[in-house]
Amino acid sequence: MPRFRLLVEYDGTSYVGWQRQDNGRSVQGAIEGAILRLTGETVSVRGAGRTDSGVHARGQVAHTDLTRDWPTETLRNALNAHLGQHGERVAILDAESVPETFDARFSALRRHYLYRIICRRSPLALEAKRAWWVVKPLDAALMHAAAQTLVGRHDFTTFRSVHCQANSPVRTLDRLDVAQDGDVIEIRATAQSFLHNQIRSLAGTLKMVGEGKWPVERVRAALDARDRKACGPVAPPEGLYFMQVDY
Amino acid sequence: MPRFRLLVEYDGTSYVGWQRQDNGRSVQGAIEGAILRLTGETVSVRGAGRTDSGVHARGQVAHTDLTRDWPTETLRNALNAHLGQHGERVAILDAESVPETFDARFSALRRHYLYRIICRRSPLALEAKRAWWVVKPLDAALMHAAAQTLVGRHDFTTFRSVHCQANSPVRTLDRLDVAQDGDVIEIRATAQSFLHNQIRSLAGTLKMVGEGKWPVERVRAALDARDRKACGPVAPPEGLYFMQVDY
Repeated sequence: MPRFRLLVEYDGTSYVGWQRQDNGRSVQGAIEGAILRLTGETVSVRGAGRTDSGVHARGQVAHTDLTRDWPTETLRNALNAHLGQHGERVAILDAESVPETFDARFSALRRHYLYRIICRRSPLALEAKRAWWVVKPLDAALMHAAAQTLVGRHDFTTFRSVHCQANSPVRTLDRLDVAQDGDVIEIRATAQSFLHNQIRSLAGTLKMVGEGKWPVERVRAALDARDRKACGPVAPPEGLYFMQVDY
Repeated sequence: MPRFRLLVEYDGTSYVGWQRQDNGRSVQGAIEGAILRLTGETVSVRGAGRTDSGVHARGQVAHTDLTRDWPTETLRNALNAHLGQHGERVAILDAESVPETFDARFSALRRHYLYRIICRRSPLALEAKRAWWVVKPLDAALMHAAAQTLVGRHDFTTFRSVHCQANSPVRTLDRLDVAQDGDVIEIRATAQSFLHNQIRSLAGTLKMVGEGKWPVERVRAALDARDRKACGPVAPPEGLYFMQVDY
């Protein structure tokens, strides 16, 4: 059967997350529903990453197998039409034919995420649910310095959810950069794969440094503790964007 | 009575517009409601511009008179708390004490607006209701060239709503720039004041040039016609942002 790779954007606000669940609408379910209405086929769409409820995507990647060898532009446009008719906040940015050996999850070489913080006194009106609103100013340079002590191959037990199902807590963090532009702070993270809640755990911990509540060195000490209790507060989902997957 | 100037951000999606109306929630009404709950006073808040339903603001300015001489930070924070409790998508970015001679509408020297277009094949998920989605690519350089033929003092009858209540159709357009960054096209407009629907009329007309349906010269000919029927289609409200007022 022909296999297709889909590039997916979504507003995660009103979804239980990427993965199909019994307790509400999922992004995966929205796409599978659109495929069912288009093709009559009940398929399983596999994503490169299982984003949590409230987490957004500009470049999630998924694959699925269909009976017919659809022209890719037709497939993209028809799926978008079906998604739009159901009021889904999901858009298929691109569809491509790929070999059967391609797997959105297991073929991924690098995943890129962005975590956005907006620091200002007033609540967010236009950016509500699109960033983490932090009232006090943060020192992005200190946050960046602390972040650099985490780059590389480490046991990230401190920075993963207790519900994380990965066999190993060891991951290689290729990039963890913190940059400021006006009242926006952007944290960019790259790795082949991440643990459950890893980026939100890192972002919440770096915020402690930015506020001056933690010295820079405490972040590395927290990593070395290999203890979930050493982690700072986990940052909320609305600041997180799944940006890109490299294959 | 002490007069206060408020700097206001809002997501215009779920409002009937800035101005209080009988048929739904307005931004003005949201702020007046917050003031009533905070102070017990029924006031009228006057804005620098009456934005339509769906139009956003990053820098609307309003003024109001209160009995008490509130510390401005307290006023801002308390109004934001009341707006948040009512689920309003409105934030007070700043509050200042101003002399009684200050009038948000009549003291304004220049108003700055942004109109955002996103050109791409797929519908907008994350930017839905935040920009005008245009499927076909537009030539921003041609749009900019056409825009320059409108800068200056002119009779803008062609580019104002038939419902416009201004006495004169003559306005001085200080700036109308079109710039492209990736799939985003930004139109920036500055004038002391604008006519009703003027920027959306200009944006919709410039899009005709960008698509190649109108030659550049037709835009100036449309202006010179001083005839509403010579205008291109009016662009939708969700692309428009009221950015700043200079005093």
